[in-house]
Amino acid sequence: MAELDLFFRPESIAVIGASRTPGKIGHAIVKNIIESGFAGTVIPVNPKEEEILGLSVTRSITDLDLPPDLVVVSVPAALAEGVVRQCGEAGVKNLVVITAGFKEVGSKGLEREKKLVGLCREFGMRMMGPNCVGVMDTHTPLNASFAKGFPRKGNIAFISQSGAMLVSILDWSLSAGLGFSRFISLGNKAVLDETDFIADAGIDENTKVILCYIEDVVKGSRFMDTAREVSKKKPIIVLKSGSSQAGALAATSHTGALAGSNLAFESAFKQTGVLRARSMEELFDLASSFATQPVPRGDRVAVVTNSGGPGIITTDSIEAHGLSMARFSKETITALREKLPGEASLYNPVDVLGDANDERYRFTLEKVLADDNVDSGLVLLSPAAVTDPGATARTMLDMRKKFPEKPLFAAYMGGASLAEGMEILTRGGIPAFTFPEQAVRAIKGMVTYGQLQAGLKEDKKDRLVQGDVDEKTVKAIFYDALRNRRVVLLGSEAALVAEAYGIPAAPIKLAKNPGEAAEIAEAMGYPVVAKVASPKILHKTDVGGVKINLKDRQEVVEAYTSIMDNAQRYFPHTPIYGVEIQKMMPKGIEIITGISRDVQFGPMIAFGLGGIYVNLLKDVSFRLAHGLSREDIRDMLQETKAYSLLRGFRGEEPADIEAVIDSIARVTRLALDFPEISEMDINPIFAYPKGLSALDIKITISPELPELDR
Amino acid sequence: MAELDLFFRPESIAVIGASRTPGKIGHAIVKNIIESGFAGTVIPVNPKEEEILGLSVTRSITDLDLPPDLVVVSVPAALAEGVVRQCGEAGVKNLVVITAGFKEVGSKGLEREKKLVGLCREFGMRMMGPNCVGVMDTHTPLNASFAKGFPRKGNIAFISQSGAMLVSILDWSLSAGLGFSRFISLGNKAVLDETDFIADAGIDENTKVILCYIEDVVKGSRFMDTAREVSKKKPIIVLKSGSSQAGALAATSHTGALAGSNLAFESAFKQTGVLRARSMEELFDLASSFATQPVPRGDRVAVVTNSGGPGIITTDSIEAHGLSMARFSKETITALREKLPGEASLYNPVDVLGDANDERYRFTLEKVLADDNVDSGLVLLSPAAVTDPGATARTMLDMRKKFPEKPLFAAYMGGASLAEGMEILTRGGIPAFTFPEQAVRAIKGMVTYGQLQAGLKEDKKDRLVQGDVDEKTVKAIFYDALRNRRVVLLGSEAALVAEAYGIPAAPIKLAKNPGEAAEIAEAMGYPVVAKVASPKILHKTDVGGVKINLKDRQEVVEAYTSIMDNAQRYFPHTPIYGVEIQKMMPKGIEIITGISRDVQFGPMIAFGLGGIYVNLLKDVSFRLAHGLSREDIRDMLQETKAYSLLRGFRGEEPADIEAVIDSIARVTRLALDFPEISEMDINPIFAYPKGLSALDIKITISPELPELDR
Repeated sequence: MAELDLFFRPESIAVIGASRTPGKIGHAIVKNIIESGFAGTVIPVNPKEEEILGLSVTRSITDLDLPPDLVVVSVPAALAEGVVRQCGEAGVKNLVVITAGFKEVGSKGLEREKKLVGLCREFGMRMMGPNCVGVMDTHTPLNASFAKGFPRKGNIAFISQSGAMLVSILDWSLSAGLGFSRFISLGNKAVLDETDFIADAGIDENTKVILCYIEDVVKGSRFMDTAREVSKKKPIIVLKSGSSQAGALAATSHTGALAGSNLAFESAFKQTGVLRARSMEELFDLASSFATQPVPRGDRVAVVTNSGGPGIITTDSIEAHGLSMARFSKETITALREKLPGEASLYNPVDVLGDANDERYRFTLEKVLADDNVDSGLVLLSPAAVTDPGATARTMLDMRKKFPEKPLFAAYMGGASLAEGMEILTRGGIPAFTFPEQAVRAIKGMVTYGQLQAGLKEDKKDRLVQGDVDEKTVKAIFYDALRNRRVVLLGSEAALVAEAYGIPAAPIKLAKNPGEAAEIAEAMGYPVVAKVASPKILHKTDVGGVKINLKDRQEVVEAYTSIMDNAQRYFPHTPIYGVEIQKMMPKGIEIITGISRDVQFGPMIAFGLGGIYVNLLKDVSFRLAHGLSREDIRDMLQETKAYSLLRGFRGEEPADIEAVIDSIARVTRLALDFPEISEMDINPIFAYPKGLSALDIKITISPELPELDR
Repeated sequence: MAELDLFFRPESIAVIGASRTPGKIGHAIVKNIIESGFAGTVIPVNPKEEEILGLSVTRSITDLDLPPDLVVVSVPAALAEGVVRQCGEAGVKNLVVITAGFKEVGSKGLEREKKLVGLCREFGMRMMGPNCVGVMDTHTPLNASFAKGFPRKGNIAFISQSGAMLVSILDWSLSAGLGFSRFISLGNKAVLDETDFIADAGIDENTKVILCYIEDVVKGSRFMDTAREVSKKKPIIVLKSGSSQAGALAATSHTGALAGSNLAFESAFKQTGVLRARSMEELFDLASSFATQPVPRGDRVAVVTNSGGPGIITTDSIEAHGLSMARFSKETITALREKLPGEASLYNPVDVLGDANDERYRFTLEKVLADDNVDSGLVLLSPAAVTDPGATARTMLDMRKKFPEKPLFAAYMGGASLAEGMEILTRGGIPAFTFPEQAVRAIKGMVTYGQLQAGLKEDKKDRLVQGDVDEKTVKAIFYDALRNRRVVLLGSEAALVAEAYGIPAAPIKLAKNPGEAAEIAEAMGYPVVAKVASPKILHKTDVGGVKINLKDRQEVVEAYTSIMDNAQRYFPHTPIYGVEIQKMMPKGIEIITGISRDVQFGPMIAFGLGGIYVNLLKDVSFRLAHGLSREDIRDMLQETKAYSLLRGFRGEEPADIEAVIDSIARVTRLALDFPEISEMDINPIFAYPKGLSALDIKITISPELPELDR
């Protein structure tokens, strides 16, 4: 039995704070449990009542001989702690805390919430909420919530961080005819969070599609691990809000969650096969499609229409979404030509013409769906004199049975005259839309899911980097820097860190006097570059802190003196550590890589076009380090224009792409091994036809280990 | 009286091909005219009948004493020519040809169509169609079409190139409660096209919003001139299909129209203030918004919600659309604080909480809409226990009256329990959506319209270029090139063309022998570049056809010989005109500009980042030359990343942006003056802190003048 199973299929439920008074939440919950047809034992708990809705009332949870499988708590916030403690003492393991007045109301509430969490830990209890609407399962059936109404039975689990959203969706779904397996209201997510319920929905046999509305995730890497596993079995579709600056502000004032950056979420979803819906409408269009249709094997769509204009609109939309118009086989075309009128368009979109009756639709659909070059079908119907929307709807249901592996969608473009046909489609399990673009967007979502899954199915087990990394050297350098009261490493230190992880860096050493500088240069070989060694001086060139192309001992000595003079003149109060001597490297293709950190998902890896125009061109792709594979890194490269350069733009020799991938893998490993690296920038790296060289490396560490989930 | 007025408000209509047989188009038309309540005279014309639907039948249009104001033709295609000729002879001026079987069925049909067009010219007749559904006006009222149903009376004119689309929309609108002033079915647009009907809807007092579905436009520049004028008075919202490659193919097979490139349409719409809808749904969401709401003065939206989650989603959507969340004044915040519960969020979005009754909505809306920092309002409502969707709908109607200049929108998130409230809103003239993102998209459309209008209202009268252009020199160069059987100009010729139009070009001259080369270089001043002069040799550098940085007479002479040797070795059969000597210019910021041609809209002007990475970075903006102003060119610059470079990136000295604008204006003038230029590329131009220099200019002319509307 799954860990959370008793939240959905308990045999006994107690409601603490049950009430006799209609309109009170404690009344609504008991009423909902009874009316949902729950077959188990229901125990209202209230110290002052004898009977509620025909059930005999227990005075306290501690009075029961056996703890109920599930306890719903709906008492004033001030009493919640005591009640939860009683639950713990009574041996209760599963709690739904409806009560509000916790983290969402500020610091006092947060204190109260922390106490609940402590009790859950102490007694080993699982808690949904607090500040939630409750939980529903249509298959049990059970409605342990105070929401009005109970969803139709279906195969979609909806997990919502917003109670109002859950209530709105429930109301909407009853009109739209969409069925659900579960409704889960996360509330403040003090103990159980989205990841727990996604994992459980993943193993629930009644759930085929998992829908989430979230404003944040509690533990980034845990979410990623779970989502990656679950999305291999069933689609997870997420509407994530709070992605804008202002939205994040609103999210903070709403549930007190610190919103993660949008970029990190985008990456997390992409890397785990989660589909992100861009709007509520898309969320539900995708839900109804996944709930009823198989995932198409590919992106080739066949369109059958009784009117030209909508056919063109749909073709545009299919292309704009990056899907393909299927190209029919010769046999299909021949068959269509034999039977369709001469003016009909036989190629995709097939125009069966305005005077098409259902027979023409049926014949065409049968031929087109049988074609191996077709992965999914979309039927467009405009109301004309001889159109029979009902018959064509029934035809589509037949086709779904006949071609079970090919998803089918309908755009019934009109109003009242098509309502009956729409109803037949919806009830029969074919997504029916008013406008064709909605159908195309749904197909796109399904195709994307298929592609994401194909990506995840690849072997991601290859370890990023073979074991040849030298953690000790890195630790020693960090230690020295911190003892020096520095969080930004010197260039020479950063290069040693890079080399310790196998990232080829241009040789660079710190000189403390002109003679040392000359010796270093002699050992390195000329020409060299001299740079002032001071992490505080940012635009070194502008203050005469850099001398390039130094060709002999004399030039190096002079450069040292000149640089130190300039630095001391411009920055009399800034610590200067000396001058760093770096070997001048031959010019290569300039790229950039680096590390940044997201509060929820940990380190992010960047790759892009390097050089002075980085900020202008912003040609950079990102991935989260957690779970990153070499194949992901290759994808990451391919997303950028820099990739065209690496492959050899305009006839130039290609660069060593494998070496670039290896170095990014090593940067990723470094990021994962050392969470104390808060930022790393390598700009530029020169990529050569063979190998590469990191020219300018900047590493910032945080003085304390951040609180991360590793 | 407007030219097309009799199509919508005739006093008499004849229907040629009127039929007694129900189900026939000729029957449906007569029936529709009668049933629409048309108050004028209806004359069925049929040589074999006596009476149709109670009206006495005329045998031939030529039998009438006076020509009717409007004649609808619905006869077999083969008979259309004769009938139309009779109409002409009878003095008919306005024709609606329903009959199909013309351009849309291929070359034979095209022949037939050309004959109709000839007759219209001969007799001075205006023709809608052929191959159309007809015309409707709800204010007259008149339904001279064979479509089933008649739209609700309203203020939206719908002009459709697709008959099926018109029928679908009509059916849909009856259910959705949207009202229309006119339905116009363009058919094949043989004589009257979208531009004619847009112009007429522009002066129709019953029309407030113009909606178009088009697959192409017939005459680009005429469309632009009309659209620009009309869109100053009322919004034109266009759904343009056939923008994809495959869609264009489908469009061609549909109405035989040659689809213009998407880029040209985008520019045409932007430059004339036309709003482009991206989907059918957006088209109608915009229509219902413009039909009922005033255009907001700015982009600051106030959101009032009874639930947090949807508030965040909406905030995200507002930011994603580039709109602003309004920031309330102190007074507004204070007023809200006094009356709303302590847990309510007073800042935008205002969360009046789940237990909000209508009073709380009313109070909040009143305060928020009175705030000068608010341009439009959006009400979100989730169904909760005390929510009163009907009362809040009525409150919103009151607010519309109280704040007539502020548009108001609703997202009623739910199903059946909110239906009554939705109905009140729709009937009362407030756009009501199920999902908040739809509302935001509609607000975005209205704000964009306002911004486009503000742009158009600027003085566009400044002539692009003061009269100092030298057409004669250009003509002479083109003449010489064509006599030389060349359509690609030599670099030195192209530079002369540029100079003739005041575009500063680096000095370049053609030398026919080494001595001449040296003389040219001496006159120009060193250093110079030598390039092989042959338009057929594309990659001149790769074949040793370019020598740079030549510093004296000797080097120039040697370069000449070497270049000619190389060219003759690599291209023994290619005509070589000699070697061009160009002055080497100091390096500046590299930009690109040029001309391309669109079949429907004429010359397009490009501007972007120049240099070798042009094709990689694709940092280019486009505008149509027709009607382009200097302000438009400035916008065009600002759309690119190259603009950041011109303004002085990373502390570099800014370039002479006015000189860049002037040169692009001159290129535009050149494009408009010489339609025979089929392509022009200037890449790179070096832009300097003062002035600029065109380095490499390529001009291709077409041997014949293209058929353009000038």
